Amino acid sequence: MKIDLNSDMAEGFGAWRMAEDETLLGIVSSVNLACGFHAGDAVIMDRTVRLAKERGVAIGAHVGFPDLMGFGRRLMQIEPKEMEKYAIYQLGALEGIARAAGARMTHASFHGALGNLISVDQSMADAMARAVRAFDPTLFVSSSPGTAIARAAEAQGLRVFTKFLADRAYDAKGLLVSRKLPGSMVKDADAVRKRVARLLTDGTVVAVTGEALRMQVDSILIHSDTAGAVDLARTIRGAIEAAGGSVAPFPQTLGGVR
Amino acid sequence: MKIDLNSDMAEGFGAWRMAEDETLLGIVSSVNLACGFHAGDAVIMDRTVRLAKERGVAIGAHVGFPDLMGFGRRLMQIEPKEMEKYAIYQLGALEGIARAAGARMTHASFHGALGNLISVDQSMADAMARAVRAFDPTLFVSSSPGTAIARAAEAQGLRVFTKFLADRAYDAKGLLVSRKLPGSMVKDADAVRKRVARLLTDGTVVAVTGEALRMQVDSILIHSDTAGAVDLARTIRGAIEAAGGSVAPFPQTLGGVR
Amino acid sequence: MKIDLNSDMAEGFGAWRMAEDETLLGIVSSVNLACGFHAGDAVIMDRTVRLAKERGVAIGAHVGFPDLMGFGRRLMQIEPKEMEKYAIYQLGALEGIARAAGARMTHASFHGALGNLISVDQSMADAMARAVRAFDPTLFVSSSPGTAIARAAEAQGLRVFTKFLADRAYDAKGLLVSRKLPGSMVKDADAVRKRVARLLTDGTVVAVTGEALRMQVDSILIHSDTAGAVDLARTIRGAIEAAGGSVAPFPQTLGGVR
Amino acid sequence: MKIDLNSDMAEGFGAWRMAEDETLLGIVSSVNLACGFHAGDAVIMDRTVRLAKERGVAIGAHVGFPDLMGFGRRLMQIEPKEMEKYAIYQLGALEGIARAAGARMTHASFHGALGNLISVDQSMADAMARAVRAFDPTLFVSSSPGTAIARAAEAQGLRVFTKFLADRAYDAKGLLVSRKLPGSMVKDADAVRKRVARLLTDGTVVAVTGEALRMQVDSILIHSDTAGAVDLARTIRGAIEAAGGSVAPFPQTLGGVR
Repeated sequence: MKIDLNSDMAEGFGAWRMAEDETLLGIVSSVNLACGFHAGDAVIMDRTVRLAKERGVAIGAHVGFPDLMGFGRRLMQIEPKEMEKYAIYQLGALEGIARAAGARMTHASFHGALGNLISVDQSMADAMARAVRAFDPTLFVSSSPGTAIARAAEAQGLRVFTKFLADRAYDAKGLLVSRKLPGSMVKDADAVRKRVARLLTDGTVVAVTGEALRMQVDSILIHSDTAGAVDLARTIRGAIEAAGGSVAPFPQTLGGVR
Repeated sequence: MKIDLNSDMAEGFGAWRMAEDETLLGIVSSVNLACGFHAGDAVIMDRTVRLAKERGVAIGAHVGFPDLMGFGRRLMQIEPKEMEKYAIYQLGALEGIARAAGARMTHASFHGALGNLISVDQSMADAMARAVRAFDPTLFVSSSPGTAIARAAEAQGLRVFTKFLADRAYDAKGLLVSRKLPGSMVKDADAVRKRVARLLTDGTVVAVTGEALRMQVDSILIHSDTAGAVDLARTIRGAIEAAGGSVAPFPQTLGGVR
Repeated sequence: MKIDLNSDMAEGFGAWRMAEDETLLGIVSSVNLACGFHAGDAVIMDRTVRLAKERGVAIGAHVGFPDLMGFGRRLMQIEPKEMEKYAIYQLGALEGIARAAGARMTHASFHGALGNLISVDQSMADAMARAVRAFDPTLFVSSSPGTAIARAAEAQGLRVFTKFLADRAYDAKGLLVSRKLPGSMVKDADAVRKRVARLLTDGTVVAVTGEALRMQVDSILIHSDTAGAVDLARTIRGAIEAAGGSVAPFPQTLGGVR
Repeated sequence: MKIDLNSDMAEGFGAWRMAEDETLLGIVSSVNLACGFHAGDAVIMDRTVRLAKERGVAIGAHVGFPDLMGFGRRLMQIEPKEMEKYAIYQLGALEGIARAAGARMTHASFHGALGNLISVDQSMADAMARAVRAFDPTLFVSSSPGTAIARAAEAQGLRVFTKFLADRAYDAKGLLVSRKLPGSMVKDADAVRKRVARLLTDGTVVAVTGEALRMQVDSILIHSDTAGAVDLARTIRGAIEAAGGSVAPFPQTLGGVR
């Protein structure tokens, strides 16, 4: 059984760095790179792309709001038609960097407040799916299962790869518990390991309210910017391997890059 | 006899506009679009690309320094290796926008202080040529004749399209007279018309010191942001047609897009 | 009868300009300057401050969201405690520019989406009033009558100067009709003139629903970035003078700068 | 014998941090805060100002080029008259933040490529001195001894506080050895300690070429962004105290804040 291990990367800017990208790139199998709007400049994007290519890690864009000061974590009321162009700009910038490095982009993911918005806002989700399709209809779209962006992507003929957040609690409907609520984070490494093992062997996750939820995903996401991200990544990778699985970039199990 | 008429475009940002792009797009045959570093955002880039495509105008990137406040007109001591990545980022961003609009990029041009620098600085010129080649070796590079970037582009197997600045004085060596010197600008419309006519019929331009210089160019550049740019463009187009020539995108005369 | 005529200014950035600030500075009596977040850089702020000082025009800050690309017109979900610091930063920047030019700041106004937000959101309004009070409790706060920011300012001991928007429709409660609704703008110069005359002679404005509303204001606002702003400003100034009034900076009628 | 210990601070932006400001604030006696151009936003400025105030640490502005992507370390050819306004803007922004926190600014320092430039370029140095004088003539200017900015500041009646870079080599003229040359950095903690001890007891520093140079300074600078900055700061503070000296904010020894 193969599963993808995914992480956000290139979340620096100029002289600033946020996470241990280089170490994480030895553990995960796919990455989402910031493209200059909420983080990421051409230099860090290039370095990350080259390392990812060397290690056979799948490369995607992490599209975000134009808010460097807020790291793309603040909701902005941008018209979907404008954000659609911003998304295409970011996708193109990363593809330029990837192509010049002899690498190939495989997917688009959505960061922070934009990612949260398109889980539920169909109008912005449609715009993001249109952006991906117009830019390159062979790209995968990364999403939690059951979101507005997953529906939009499928409606527009795009392939989706779904992700499980091993360190976040889910509610009875299978949606993420808001970070503002207590218990939203699963901080104990052992608990994380058990969740991953259960997901892999049983296909379920236990909701914060106690129910066992069916959860079919292609990838497990690790937040690179949380303290202990590298340890958590190793824990999750260990749990996958202990459960008899192996980590592989999602395109290998989802029909590959077209 | 066909010649290209070229202009810089998309030199706005957010709510700001600089030039009458829409009108100029009915007169010129190729454009260089700001890509977000010295000017240009995804929305104005998209609008300009779509208009250019409709009108059969060739679309290129206007790569610049990351200096929105200075409009890319101030020299910055950026390492060539870093600027190379910035250039690829800008090229990619525009190509994304162009591709999503069903258009195709044909060339790269260099704006302001970066453009001036790579006329003479071989190290940065080499970096810019490397950026274009790594991104897309079929792109043309726009340059005045005889510059460091023209040499770099040719050395790396890129095609160059050369441009004549009808409203700028040249010295005896065929180089532009610095804007800081008196007489650097040719402001009189009639004088501009005569220069264009002479270039087209005789293949020469009269230097500021009086010599007739041989000048073989593929394009005539109009600065979109000077007062009276639209009138000047019409004057030049009129002079071309009066001399029996016609205006056509440079790829038509230079072997086309590969 | 004296009334203030107020306008937004310095809404350029680097090479970009938006409005005819210089001409308007000969007509209005107070101005709100963009301070670098949604528009405005140190150079245009300095030039505008010096012109305003020469002409005896009262100088205030136009505090906005950090969104140059969106000109501060898009709502951002910024924590009030963070926006409070951003506001103080902007106030300080303008005061530095003003002080170096031998001028004095008299007020704070709030731009675009932030201005709209603090008309109704008491939490952000309180934060903005705290910012002004902590920075300089002698500053006036500019607001439409009856808003959350007017209440917050008064609760914190700040003086408010109220403004009437001559070219915008009001509803029966005296609140601005949203720009998204038809009839929100009063575009006819003659209608604007009549509204100003009525306000000055009768102290009322006719709501979009027909009622005559009592409206006590200290200032009439002219949007500098709308087409015909200069003509509109002259029309309004003419209407004031025709009604026997005169235009004077609001501090003259409101007890002056402390 | 009292000497100041100075460090750069607030060199983060949004979600990014660079140095251990909080720990360093318990060791040094004066700090220079980034003001938003090369680093620093209103939130980190405010937090740093409040901590500095609590600990009796003198607060100054670290004025830089408008280059967030390059962290102000790249030379930009900005007109001195424009940079003068940028400097005033930054000084004002910090003073706003300081005043709102009940603190007081004491000095201006210049960061990175701007700092290097005004060591030798009299025209830009004059502009920076004019900026400080126009903004607040009671502020001190921080500089190495013998620079263009030190001369400019004195010529304009400003007080200068001079600084010694304990971890950097000096040439025979008492100027810093360029970072690009080998031996420019003194990396060994013991060597740093000895240099500080010698400076304090003997008033000299040994140049890279072997000469003992007289060096009269008011402050010792610690770069907060180098690895081991906290340890180095403790080492230097220990060396001062071991030499019978004590660490105190420079205004205490230089006649105080006016």
